[in-house]
Amino acid sequence: MKMTIGGITVSNRKEDFLATFRAHRKVTNDLIALIDEKKLDFAPTDTSMPVGKLANHILEATYTFARLANNQSPAKLFDDDDNTELKSKASTYTQETEKLIASMSEEDFDKTIDVSDMLGEKLPAEKVLETGMHHEIHHKGQLFVYVRAMGHDDLPYYISL
Amino acid sequence: MKMTIGGITVSNRKEDFLATFRAHRKVTNDLIALIDEKKLDFAPTDTSMPVGKLANHILEATYTFARLANNQSPAKLFDDDDNTELKSKASTYTQETEKLIASMSEEDFDKTIDVSDMLGEKLPAEKVLETGMHHEIHHKGQLFVYVRAMGHDDLPYYISL
Repeated sequence: MKMTIGGITVSNRKEDFLATFRAHRKVTNDLIALIDEKKLDFAPTDTSMPVGKLANHILEATYTFARLANNQSPAKLFDDDDNTELKSKASTYTQETEKLIASMSEEDFDKTIDVSDMLGEKLPAEKVLETGMHHEIHHKGQLFVYVRAMGHDDLPYYISL
Repeated sequence: MKMTIGGITVSNRKEDFLATFRAHRKVTNDLIALIDEKKLDFAPTDTSMPVGKLANHILEATYTFARLANNQSPAKLFDDDDNTELKSKASTYTQETEKLIASMSEEDFDKTIDVSDMLGEKLPAEKVLETGMHHEIHHKGQLFVYVRAMGHDDLPYYISL
């Protein structure tokens, strides 16, 4: 949350970002909990990414954005052929992503990160995190339609208030 | 974009937010352009909102979030039974939403807005805009699956870089 002190804007961007991350990730994880482990190959259209792959992509990408914001290289916590249950992977990714964000200082949010490979430019760490959040919200929106197509119609609000 | 001057974080939040809004809205409008005006009742599942209603909801909601951030009450630019083509509505909403954001001063971003009815709390105008942006990204994510289910598989990236 930002405040104006003496006409200058200051903020506690870490707590603000952590709250936003948790509010959306809770919903991502609630949707993942509805996915039948036997139906990870389900896709709502012929050309769609399968649901298991989409869920993994959300978890891996947000973790990678958090690593990049911390000046670390992209990495996955599970191999592509790892058979750990999706819910369990979601729990591990959520914890590790939170740790990365929580480890940042206020100054770290202003550090310039070279994300030319992924986003075509250098960005402040804060913007890298914001982009990661938008990426997760985008794919979580898709996941809502997937889960509904899998027969679930009692779904959460898009953000946990 | 935020910068640190003398250890204190300052920003040009309007230009930053406008750039983010435009980068996502361009994609929203590109998806809307793919929707056949004769198929506004299409829904990807039995319990889904029809595509025409979803597209209108995105446009109306982001405009309302921008009005709220400007201390104005919610309003629609077209009646529910208005037959204006969806693409044309999208163009009008995009222009009017941009105008509202562009009219804000840096100080306006810090003003406290009572959005208790919609979000259960009072929030700084900046947070109201951010929430509106997240709301659009969420529903735009859903729209990607809808448009794919309507037979389009050559779709844009989720953000216009």
